[in-house]
Amino acid sequence: MSHTHENPVGLQEKYQRELLSAGLLIESSVPGVYGRSDVFEGVIQRFEAYLTRNSRHLQPEVIHFPPILSRDDYLKTSHIETFPHLMGSLHGFLGNERTHMELLRKREHGENWAADLEPIELMMAPAACYPLYPTARDTTLPEKGRLIDLVGFVFRHEPSNDPARMQSFRQREFVQLGTPEQALNHRDDWIDKGIELYKGVGLDEVQRVIANDPFFGRGGRAMVVSQIEQAMKYELVFPITSTEKPTAIASSNYHMDHFSHSYNIKTTNGEFAHTACIGFGLERTALAMFKKFRFDVKAWPSSVKTALEL
Amino acid sequence: MSHTHENPVGLQEKYQRELLSAGLLIESSVPGVYGRSDVFEGVIQRFEAYLTRNSRHLQPEVIHFPPILSRDDYLKTSHIETFPHLMGSLHGFLGNERTHMELLRKREHGENWAADLEPIELMMAPAACYPLYPTARDTTLPEKGRLIDLVGFVFRHEPSNDPARMQSFRQREFVQLGTPEQALNHRDDWIDKGIELYKGVGLDEVQRVIANDPFFGRGGRAMVVSQIEQAMKYELVFPITSTEKPTAIASSNYHMDHFSHSYNIKTTNGEFAHTACIGFGLERTALAMFKKFRFDVKAWPSSVKTALEL
Repeated sequence: MSHTHENPVGLQEKYQRELLSAGLLIESSVPGVYGRSDVFEGVIQRFEAYLTRNSRHLQPEVIHFPPILSRDDYLKTSHIETFPHLMGSLHGFLGNERTHMELLRKREHGENWAADLEPIELMMAPAACYPLYPTARDTTLPEKGRLIDLVGFVFRHEPSNDPARMQSFRQREFVQLGTPEQALNHRDDWIDKGIELYKGVGLDEVQRVIANDPFFGRGGRAMVVSQIEQAMKYELVFPITSTEKPTAIASSNYHMDHFSHSYNIKTTNGEFAHTACIGFGLERTALAMFKKFRFDVKAWPSSVKTALEL
Repeated sequence: MSHTHENPVGLQEKYQRELLSAGLLIESSVPGVYGRSDVFEGVIQRFEAYLTRNSRHLQPEVIHFPPILSRDDYLKTSHIETFPHLMGSLHGFLGNERTHMELLRKREHGENWAADLEPIELMMAPAACYPLYPTARDTTLPEKGRLIDLVGFVFRHEPSNDPARMQSFRQREFVQLGTPEQALNHRDDWIDKGIELYKGVGLDEVQRVIANDPFFGRGGRAMVVSQIEQAMKYELVFPITSTEKPTAIASSNYHMDHFSHSYNIKTTNGEFAHTACIGFGLERTALAMFKKFRFDVKAWPSSVKTALEL
């Protein structure tokens, strides 16, 4: 089939059906929410170990975060302005036995019982590195800055049959806090390193693009222009289901001093720190590998298996 | 200090402070929500691999689940009746640019912006095995039943300074679907096996107790009596911070045919299947090990390090 006849949605749904029928992903009743098989998870674990082996010489601090973020810290990002449609806000039942009876009555009668719940102090984490910045609140960074290796589940409310567009998935990130130069060097080094690492596991088609986020609404469109002009976001894209519209499997963001202003993080010279991160989409990386090398991991090229210690 | 002078809350907070100051857990602004250090996570990963090695001969199916569950499937459990105070309901912004402006205005003025969000089709998973049962909907089990090895983050809205009472933590579960005999054998075998596995990593103090859940409200108290009478729930407890009130680090539940009725899961003889699970609390297991063997993993007894391949 030539590119001009590609139907991106059709190709996404075809790949989804293949993954489900091979049992690599396990369907739920909600689009974009899947169980992962042992084989699927195995590729993610081996890719994570590969990233660890190839970053150990940098001696990063390592932190694992749970999938939730404090509501206060969520509001210190710009997510509510830029991606409100993707947020997940946690609500709970803070009532007593009487209001509990009323909750159950509403549920019984098919009424909107959940509307009576109250917002609690938590949001779904929209990015794996958002829980990091508050942990550095009111600190002065060491001379060389800080490099953090982190991983966590993130949430995006965007039901889809594109297997690469999950509502809940993991990002493995390397984050630099430091001077503007340290942050920018981190971003530039890791874009090159990311391409190299993907080539090392056989994903030679990976390409770097200057990217913009699909911000919400009209205000968003102004932000897109600004983001592209400043080249603050790069993506590494791979043709998972479409060569015309390749999918971002990793992305790199330069936040300037946004987070350090929110949390009062300084460099040794007393300036607000700058931050930059690269995030590897673990599920999307696995989907790229299964697409290119197909579903029988034992039959993958030996160079790929060697690199991943599969 | 003798047992009669123990202050359980004080001991919990003391252990929390020790873990935070050693950097094993990283504090957030919400009680019970922590980052995990490399060392903390390493113990969990090694314990998980130990469980895998010691269950491989059973040839379980392996599934990893994301931290969320469909709202419909949540309502097929009894969680809203029994533990409403622990639920996490996901709410999202489904509006347009105009309502987005209003959302931002409310947030700007310190109003309850989140109350305008709408319940979406997802809940936080309250137990790691709840996403499993719907995947077996309308099936007949094989003769020997099905054994599933699964893991996932679960959520409980119970802010606490007890490090063993996290709001977001992982359960590794082994679940049996089958005849009543297969389900009960699974429960009984795994209680013995669980004790043995914990002794194998040096946690000799683990004990089995017939347990009851702290159900919500008055209706809950009747359920407690019924649960204890039928001995449906066992816990494996370990004195993490208190010898008087040891902490459940694993628990086993027999659900009779509750889930198979909800999802129409049958055995070969045409009866509704019975289900049972054992869940290992991964964070609590690590907390038990750090409590007993302290924070320098390299100095742990060689038998423990050998068992965990540490």
